[in-house]
Amino acid sequence: MARFLKNFDQKAGKSPGSLIFIGQQRMDEPRLRIIDYDSQTLRKEFIKTIDEVGPIKETNTTSWFNIDGLHDSELVKRVGEKFDLPSLMLEDIQDTGQRPKIEEYQDHLFITMKMLFLNEDQTEVWSEQLSAILTPNYLITFQERPGDVFEPVRNRITKPSGKIRTRGTDYLLYALLDCVLENYLKVIEKMGERIEDMEEEVLENPVPELLEEINLYRREIAYVRKAVRPVREIISKLKNLDSEIINPETMPYLRDLSSLEEQAVDSAEIYKEMLADLFSTYNMAIGSKLNEIMKFLTIFATIFIPLTFLAGIYGMNFESMPELHYKYGYHVLLGVMAVVVVGMLFYFKKRKWI
Amino acid sequence: MARFLKNFDQKAGKSPGSLIFIGQQRMDEPRLRIIDYDSQTLRKEFIKTIDEVGPIKETNTTSWFNIDGLHDSELVKRVGEKFDLPSLMLEDIQDTGQRPKIEEYQDHLFITMKMLFLNEDQTEVWSEQLSAILTPNYLITFQERPGDVFEPVRNRITKPSGKIRTRGTDYLLYALLDCVLENYLKVIEKMGERIEDMEEEVLENPVPELLEEINLYRREIAYVRKAVRPVREIISKLKNLDSEIINPETMPYLRDLSSLEEQAVDSAEIYKEMLADLFSTYNMAIGSKLNEIMKFLTIFATIFIPLTFLAGIYGMNFESMPELHYKYGYHVLLGVMAVVVVGMLFYFKKRKWI
Amino acid sequence: MARFLKNFDQKAGKSPGSLIFIGQQRMDEPRLRIIDYDSQTLRKEFIKTIDEVGPIKETNTTSWFNIDGLHDSELVKRVGEKFDLPSLMLEDIQDTGQRPKIEEYQDHLFITMKMLFLNEDQTEVWSEQLSAILTPNYLITFQERPGDVFEPVRNRITKPSGKIRTRGTDYLLYALLDCVLENYLKVIEKMGERIEDMEEEVLENPVPELLEEINLYRREIAYVRKAVRPVREIISKLKNLDSEIINPETMPYLRDLSSLEEQAVDSAEIYKEMLADLFSTYNMAIGSKLNEIMKFLTIFATIFIPLTFLAGIYGMNFESMPELHYKYGYHVLLGVMAVVVVGMLFYFKKRKWI
Amino acid sequence: MARFLKNFDQKAGKSPGSLIFIGQQRMDEPRLRIIDYDSQTLRKEFIKTIDEVGPIKETNTTSWFNIDGLHDSELVKRVGEKFDLPSLMLEDIQDTGQRPKIEEYQDHLFITMKMLFLNEDQTEVWSEQLSAILTPNYLITFQERPGDVFEPVRNRITKPSGKIRTRGTDYLLYALLDCVLENYLKVIEKMGERIEDMEEEVLENPVPELLEEINLYRREIAYVRKAVRPVREIISKLKNLDSEIINPETMPYLRDLSSLEEQAVDSAEIYKEMLADLFSTYNMAIGSKLNEIMKFLTIFATIFIPLTFLAGIYGMNFESMPELHYKYGYHVLLGVMAVVVVGMLFYFKKRKWI
Amino acid sequence: MARFLKNFDQKAGKSPGSLIFIGQQRMDEPRLRIIDYDSQTLRKEFIKTIDEVGPIKETNTTSWFNIDGLHDSELVKRVGEKFDLPSLMLEDIQDTGQRPKIEEYQDHLFITMKMLFLNEDQTEVWSEQLSAILTPNYLITFQERPGDVFEPVRNRITKPSGKIRTRGTDYLLYALLDCVLENYLKVIEKMGERIEDMEEEVLENPVPELLEEINLYRREIAYVRKAVRPVREIISKLKNLDSEIINPETMPYLRDLSSLEEQAVDSAEIYKEMLADLFSTYNMAIGSKLNEIMKFLTIFATIFIPLTFLAGIYGMNFESMPELHYKYGYHVLLGVMAVVVVGMLFYFKKRKWI
Repeated sequence: MARFLKNFDQKAGKSPGSLIFIGQQRMDEPRLRIIDYDSQTLRKEFIKTIDEVGPIKETNTTSWFNIDGLHDSELVKRVGEKFDLPSLMLEDIQDTGQRPKIEEYQDHLFITMKMLFLNEDQTEVWSEQLSAILTPNYLITFQERPGDVFEPVRNRITKPSGKIRTRGTDYLLYALLDCVLENYLKVIEKMGERIEDMEEEVLENPVPELLEEINLYRREIAYVRKAVRPVREIISKLKNLDSEIINPETMPYLRDLSSLEEQAVDSAEIYKEMLADLFSTYNMAIGSKLNEIMKFLTIFATIFIPLTFLAGIYGMNFESMPELHYKYGYHVLLGVMAVVVVGMLFYFKKRKWI
Repeated sequence: MARFLKNFDQKAGKSPGSLIFIGQQRMDEPRLRIIDYDSQTLRKEFIKTIDEVGPIKETNTTSWFNIDGLHDSELVKRVGEKFDLPSLMLEDIQDTGQRPKIEEYQDHLFITMKMLFLNEDQTEVWSEQLSAILTPNYLITFQERPGDVFEPVRNRITKPSGKIRTRGTDYLLYALLDCVLENYLKVIEKMGERIEDMEEEVLENPVPELLEEINLYRREIAYVRKAVRPVREIISKLKNLDSEIINPETMPYLRDLSSLEEQAVDSAEIYKEMLADLFSTYNMAIGSKLNEIMKFLTIFATIFIPLTFLAGIYGMNFESMPELHYKYGYHVLLGVMAVVVVGMLFYFKKRKWI
Repeated sequence: MARFLKNFDQKAGKSPGSLIFIGQQRMDEPRLRIIDYDSQTLRKEFIKTIDEVGPIKETNTTSWFNIDGLHDSELVKRVGEKFDLPSLMLEDIQDTGQRPKIEEYQDHLFITMKMLFLNEDQTEVWSEQLSAILTPNYLITFQERPGDVFEPVRNRITKPSGKIRTRGTDYLLYALLDCVLENYLKVIEKMGERIEDMEEEVLENPVPELLEEINLYRREIAYVRKAVRPVREIISKLKNLDSEIINPETMPYLRDLSSLEEQAVDSAEIYKEMLADLFSTYNMAIGSKLNEIMKFLTIFATIFIPLTFLAGIYGMNFESMPELHYKYGYHVLLGVMAVVVVGMLFYFKKRKWI
Repeated sequence: MARFLKNFDQKAGKSPGSLIFIGQQRMDEPRLRIIDYDSQTLRKEFIKTIDEVGPIKETNTTSWFNIDGLHDSELVKRVGEKFDLPSLMLEDIQDTGQRPKIEEYQDHLFITMKMLFLNEDQTEVWSEQLSAILTPNYLITFQERPGDVFEPVRNRITKPSGKIRTRGTDYLLYALLDCVLENYLKVIEKMGERIEDMEEEVLENPVPELLEEINLYRREIAYVRKAVRPVREIISKLKNLDSEIINPETMPYLRDLSSLEEQAVDSAEIYKEMLADLFSTYNMAIGSKLNEIMKFLTIFATIFIPLTFLAGIYGMNFESMPELHYKYGYHVLLGVMAVVVVGMLFYFKKRKWI
Repeated sequence: MARFLKNFDQKAGKSPGSLIFIGQQRMDEPRLRIIDYDSQTLRKEFIKTIDEVGPIKETNTTSWFNIDGLHDSELVKRVGEKFDLPSLMLEDIQDTGQRPKIEEYQDHLFITMKMLFLNEDQTEVWSEQLSAILTPNYLITFQERPGDVFEPVRNRITKPSGKIRTRGTDYLLYALLDCVLENYLKVIEKMGERIEDMEEEVLENPVPELLEEINLYRREIAYVRKAVRPVREIISKLKNLDSEIINPETMPYLRDLSSLEEQAVDSAEIYKEMLADLFSTYNMAIGSKLNEIMKFLTIFATIFIPLTFLAGIYGMNFESMPELHYKYGYHVLLGVMAVVVVGMLFYFKKRKWI
């Protein structure tokens, strides 16, 4: 399966708004959690069915309704009915191949983007799709599986004194986006550490494993860029949104996301360039290592060539070779050979070949 | 014939609006099909002549009139007369070398773009030109030959309960564009699978066939980009169209096309870059494989050089070479040779050459 | 002379509006032709002097006044006086090194651009400067020498039934621009055919002549791009022109030029990239062909090295070399040599070197 | 630790506005200095606690309150309380991984950017974060450690006749930014001198140390670009600011910063390109040096090959080799060998190989 | 000293508007010249002191006041006082490291840019800074040293009939800018001629001197681009200036500068790309020349390897080697050797290696 594109065979030609899960199912049962709070009260629990969410309230508490697991189209459909969400939006939620985007509806704001995770030995990045629907009272989020980057936010909600407890769903959305973006930076930083290390290794010890690692990181950085770059547009639209759904007080926070995002994009670009440089440096390092060997051996061989020739001369069987009969002919020849060797070494030295 | 450009000799200097077919004829007789429907009724049949289309109706049914085969200028002209289409538009329809574009007329919308197909062994992409004219009651489409990507749409029309049955021609146009774009993604995905596979192959087994395949894919991806990138403008204009011909209810669907298109463009770019990387990785892999061979052989040869020299020395015919007369001279020499070999191997090992 | 720049020595520091011909004179006498027509009448003749043009008429016929040959500054000046053209415009006309541009005056429109021609063996592109001045009644064009791409337009004017006969100078200008742009595409297509052919050749038969050809095409494509790309701005300004000089009915035609131009620019870019790829593929092909030879020869040499060493051993003159006295010593040695050869071949085979 | 990104682990998921120092602590105790002046009076002293700043005055003196050392969150918080600064701004000040940015508040202007320093042997650039908050009466600056580029400004303030003494905080801010930007140019100039020197070295003496130096400079220039490029936006926003906080008289000075910044960005880009060129020139130089050696040695070896062969021939033990018995056979052979050598040298010369 | 940046040490931290000369002093005494003219009168003379300029007149003559030599800060200051110029402007004039820019003041227009000169053997470009201040009656220009590109303008002023005599300072400014831009083109053209010549040389005779020349031109073209590209903005602002200082009649002339500038930028870019191509072509040419040598020599050596082996065989001293005793053994062996040589040549021919 092409990793950079999801399976479009499943979807092609379906009626728009058809609810089909596109992607890999990563868990069994979808898991639903509701966190409902204001500055005084807090309800935080896993629920079994959508009915436990309770009626769409007119109270002022802030509710975060999170669903882990997207494969249950029936559930997604019922969420859509309960919160009166357009079917195109539901379709997007279930399609894990979505490009990150933001869409503004009458009284919803829909954002879908990727969370990035690095596996333990830091050799592969994988992504999980996060969809968030912002309504005045509810923030509904969909994830592909349990485990996310939002634990710090849940902790802050749990503390009665947290500022987040006095704010609405728009601030909650900001807090989540902040987590996602900071996580981008963490992932890139982790990769960057290894990439910066490789810069020295590549000159000292250019082994094939390093080349494979460079290639691997190039692919992973491309993967990261694919997830991170479209978020720029999302943040930019978010900053300039003219919607009642966002409290003006939250605006400075949203603007603050922008520099995080810029940093993520910048860093990914810098590491991309570094990897391209690493690739050509590796190429050069491997070449100059080999050249060094070849040079040594060729000079070595060359020194023996005239010596062997001389030995060949005096191995000939001509009847009349006067040198053969000299008493010290042999020793003189050995002396001549020594002179030849020294002379050649001297010449090579002079030309800076050795 | 240049594949990236159609034959301009045929057309050059003709009066604008001249109806000349530019391209390769791919079928004998043009084939006409009319699909006429509303939520209650459905007429779906092949027709022989344009007259069977019937009078331009004032009823509210939605009509999709499709023509397969562009080479019959007479037919194209009669379609133009019947639907009162400008001659420049007809000229564009018959020129299969058209760049994808959208044009807004008083009461028509004209779109021309490419459908992409991958041949069976996934080594060549070929394109077919699709032209669509949107009028309030009729959607007229022209294709180069039978067989297209619209079967799912026709199926949805056949189902009496389909949403499409209750919508007009603008929604039908959207459904067709959606098919075309999803098909772009399918084609790119298929190529991408192979490209991603090649990433491992190129390091393990850099054979010339792989280089040819890399070059082939580079060309095909260039071909795909040429078809896909101009569609961006089409979608963008479509989204911002201020025309009565598009029902406001259809607008969200048109906007939804945008992220499909962005994904197609992004992926094509990513695979283009990957192929360039593959090319240089191949280059490096082939080089380092050869280097490995050369290094082995050179070291091998080098070890024999002093040995052969020694043998040459004692093959000389000097009268006075005392070593020749020692009882164990021969065996000592063999021992010396063994020492030389071991010494050189040790030295090479120390310098990490072997 | 630098081909990509005209001789600026001639012009530098002259008073603006000075009439000096800059370029290469390509004909003796300038040739003047007037084509004057409306739907009823047609006058088409070469004239000797500017006076034969007749008085600037108030009638409704459309006049196309073409001058071949720019070196006669006196003539250019008189044309300027007759049609009341600004001296800066006349200066631009005579400077064949002009960058393509469009300029709007009170009641003129001035366009200057290049016509491109390919020499017969398709190895060189040369350009000729076309300047056109559009006035309500007259279209005045200047070319460097006889022979152009406008023959089809003249033919269409000759036919009494041609649409062009009922239109004004703005439509005539469109027809000419259409010819020029289609000719761009023809030139690029011709080059493209060869370039696409080279893609196979370069892998099969990378001879130095091919490299020279690749380099030649790179230069020519650069030359084409230099002429074609600035035309984009011209077409763009033309499309958005708010001038009475252009009849609204002509506007759709002008817009139609845009996609021709886009195609020319796109194709030139694609072929530019292809040539860069060809260059590196050639490099790789030549390298891998040589590597193949070197590998063969090195392996071949390596096989003989131990054999020659063995022969050397038994060519030594030690008194006590027992093997020399064995009856089948010689034959055993030959056998040993055969075993060494087979063993090495087997080893090389196993390591996939042969 | 990744040098191009700060440690995001420390921060991730914290409540926005949390005061946590992110970076490396570079000094023990934060150091506070107040410089308060108008054209008549001057107070310039280090203070121990924030209380010594005195009440936020309504007088017209200009105050520059500088804090060296960011790690003391308590201090930062108290500064925030005293000057009524938003907590998001305080958070940014303590995060030394901030991307340079400008933010406009009701009655503050907040700028954060990097100061660049080059270590003594010009092999590493390090950056220090500068944050500046402009209020009508106070300019508050935060730096990571003592020592900065502002000494000239402090000197100008000390001089009673300095123009700066008659201006407000906005002019003071300009003076500081001017120092920072000029320092960028100084750093780039220092690196540029070495880079331009390397251009000659790389052709004459391509030693591995030079490659390491080239790679080092590539990394450092990337680091400089990361700091310098975002400042463009800051200057651009500053120039177009419509705020009462900036005196119109200061505007021309702010505009003047723009060309400094452009120069810094341009130069960094140019040196970046130069380094990439240096890298490939090094590659080529090292290759052609090796090639020269190989060519010499191969030609040398080749000349001996036929000679050694001839010696081998006459070393054979055939009974009937008539040449062996000629009186001058040996001398004739030596003559033949000389002829072979001369002939080969002549041939090589002719083909321009030597 | 870094050639691409001027010495910022001198300036760093100075009060803005401080008059310090930054650059290399290129002459002793500054030289002042005044040219004062209208259609009737002409005064053209060198003056000693600024006082000789006379009172700032209210008459209608056009005055061009030129100062050669920037190092005399006192002089610059007095000019500033006389014409009431802002100190920031004076500072810019004395800083020869200025980036080209235009600045609009209440009743001045300030332009600073580079004049380019090519040394005689066309191996180095050097630049001289030109600053021009346009006021309604005076055009004040500053240059670094005597000798410029304005001689043609002075000549035109001298002619009583010149159009320039009837125009104001704005037209004079245009005439100077025109000279500067045409000179850019001349410099680029001169370099371009050599660059285009090198295209053939590089394939035929890739000597190291050529590589050095290619590298030299790359640096010089980078230098030219650094001077030429920012002028684009100047021309663009000039074209769109809404200032009383520019007579509307001069506007068409200013617009005309735009296409000169575009041409200069385009050409510089084209030659930059050509040089990059030349660089890689050189690399390839040198490589393929060496490969040719190596191939020849390796094949040559390989042919002798089996021959030498055979000679070695029959040089062995085994007692029982029957071949040695055959009457024609020697001659048969020579025959066998000949067969081997022919066979190998045939094989190499077949595989197209020779």
